[in-house]
Amino acid sequence: MGVSGYRQISHAALGGFCNELFAAYGFSAAESGQIAEVILRADLYGIESHGVHRLIRYHEEIHNGFVDVGAKSEIVHETPISAVIDAHKAMGQLVSIEAMALAMQKAKVSGIGMSAVRNSNHYGIASYYSEMALREDLAGICMTNTEAICVPTHAKRAMLGTNPIAFAIPALPVPFSFDASTTVVPRGTLEVFKNNGEKLPDSWALDQNGKPCTDAAFVLGNIIGKLGGGIAPLGGAGEKTAGHKGYGLAAMVDIFTGIFSSGLTSNHVNTQTGVAGMCHYFCAFDYGLFGDKAVIRQNLSHFLQELRDTPKADGQSRVYIPGERNLESLTLRQNALIPVSAQTYAELQKIAQEMHIPFNLT
Amino acid sequence: MGVSGYRQISHAALGGFCNELFAAYGFSAAESGQIAEVILRADLYGIESHGVHRLIRYHEEIHNGFVDVGAKSEIVHETPISAVIDAHKAMGQLVSIEAMALAMQKAKVSGIGMSAVRNSNHYGIASYYSEMALREDLAGICMTNTEAICVPTHAKRAMLGTNPIAFAIPALPVPFSFDASTTVVPRGTLEVFKNNGEKLPDSWALDQNGKPCTDAAFVLGNIIGKLGGGIAPLGGAGEKTAGHKGYGLAAMVDIFTGIFSSGLTSNHVNTQTGVAGMCHYFCAFDYGLFGDKAVIRQNLSHFLQELRDTPKADGQSRVYIPGERNLESLTLRQNALIPVSAQTYAELQKIAQEMHIPFNLT
Repeated sequence: MGVSGYRQISHAALGGFCNELFAAYGFSAAESGQIAEVILRADLYGIESHGVHRLIRYHEEIHNGFVDVGAKSEIVHETPISAVIDAHKAMGQLVSIEAMALAMQKAKVSGIGMSAVRNSNHYGIASYYSEMALREDLAGICMTNTEAICVPTHAKRAMLGTNPIAFAIPALPVPFSFDASTTVVPRGTLEVFKNNGEKLPDSWALDQNGKPCTDAAFVLGNIIGKLGGGIAPLGGAGEKTAGHKGYGLAAMVDIFTGIFSSGLTSNHVNTQTGVAGMCHYFCAFDYGLFGDKAVIRQNLSHFLQELRDTPKADGQSRVYIPGERNLESLTLRQNALIPVSAQTYAELQKIAQEMHIPFNLT
Repeated sequence: MGVSGYRQISHAALGGFCNELFAAYGFSAAESGQIAEVILRADLYGIESHGVHRLIRYHEEIHNGFVDVGAKSEIVHETPISAVIDAHKAMGQLVSIEAMALAMQKAKVSGIGMSAVRNSNHYGIASYYSEMALREDLAGICMTNTEAICVPTHAKRAMLGTNPIAFAIPALPVPFSFDASTTVVPRGTLEVFKNNGEKLPDSWALDQNGKPCTDAAFVLGNIIGKLGGGIAPLGGAGEKTAGHKGYGLAAMVDIFTGIFSSGLTSNHVNTQTGVAGMCHYFCAFDYGLFGDKAVIRQNLSHFLQELRDTPKADGQSRVYIPGERNLESLTLRQNALIPVSAQTYAELQKIAQEMHIPFNLT
């Protein structure tokens, strides 16, 4: 942030640009606003990889037909507490907002609601959807699979996606909002190491033979070329530092997403052969299922404060609650400036040209 | 297994011993059988730390009053899909079997059932309860908090338990059954390193200043004396290898257990000051909520076979499905011999003497 090579652009200006861009693709004004909000939430949270940085990939996905701008998602199975939705290649953000809203509606009537979505696309940050539940004083869960990048323990080929798990629940002064991939790091972090010419830590990535590999450029080349290897599950390569736990969590995410939606598992999503079809899972539940909501919220808020107040490790000044740093970033940025890298800025310029929309981000 | 210092004792003989022992404490024959089954399931699965190895701790907990042999657990809050149960210091295994059975009963009527339990005790392996759901063709989830041993990212004091997450769902030829603590390793692994005089890997444990520490004996001394430090969350110490993800998962487990049951969070469980009161969470749901069960089971079984068939890393011969090794161990051991360490054997002898029951394990 504020690094040289970054331009500072106002949140409002970026929002205007996104709205205009998605309208130019053919989305309605309401749809464009929803997509823009999810994308910009990532930038507000300081999660650069999922913000406007990603517009170039959405641009390509719309042009190559992975995303069908006119798609109408369809409920293909439904009970009072569950639904399965076929996205029919809709923009991931649009079907995901619908699916989480449906889960919340069911939760308000029945205490819990769950929806699984198939044939979708990249949906941005998982916490956007788990946090939707907070508006209605509900707890929210969200998971997604992605194109395979994670190598199962003892294997040498990527079979699972980054497969994040997100969980949000109201608390004071700020909610608890956990959102993390089940890989040790996301692909974007490997790209940072590559660009800096830095060696990767020993257990982050695997070469085509399943051996730990510290050369970020080499691993990324293998990932892009689908030549084998990939990123280690949370915990690292092998079992010594508990990588099998991250592998198990990632497989569990593929069960809730790819299997429960009767869609594709991560290992069958292949954007090179033209198969997108990511799958998501959404759940909202009323934590009043477990007693008086005010008491539960108070107990939770007290526990989170105890975590914040834990004596700090030497050299550390804070213990964070999951989601807290995102909210602090949002508070700073929403009426102010968002850093956009020189590369992303050039990509936005190119996109504007191709879509014949004005480009006046300065 | 078969290591020198281990005796080989038949499953049947160990079962008979456990039944007699728990009857001697005052449990009914049915209760003793249930407790014995949970304990021996761990030994059958090859999870020595949670098998008869643990009898000495249960023995102490019954004697010092943490466990109330005559306790009757009580449903203190209930809806068609949820319940909160006060264990009133019951043996963890007994209230947990009740709580999971209640969740399953609700799931069969309403599609899902959840129960949170407070004022309980150590309940053995989490997967025993998540796997109960399999008997009724349901999926099962189970979590528990424990006495704090896990240091939050950037802190120097243990605030969270080993806080395992378990998830089981039917598949062929064997179910998917994930069960893992959210720490990088359990305490038992530190004890093994201590006994072998081996140095710990760099990011497993923290000293009283929150600095990574490789001296297992020193860390264990600090844990036992509650002098600070402890075990790192899944991912390791600090944020570099994603330890903040394990920290977030562990905190989430304390929300589902300690907070939803209106009981104690891990940081308030303190067996030294006489406060046990562990809390658990159980969930069962019908995966038919998401469509035709036969189709879902088939798709899942196919996906799991694809994971098994992933090309292996150099030097590896198998990719395992979570739970698969446990079942293979059970198949080998249930009509055969279970290895019992010399130390555990001596403890069982002592317990038998103190409880005036015959000791004829050979």
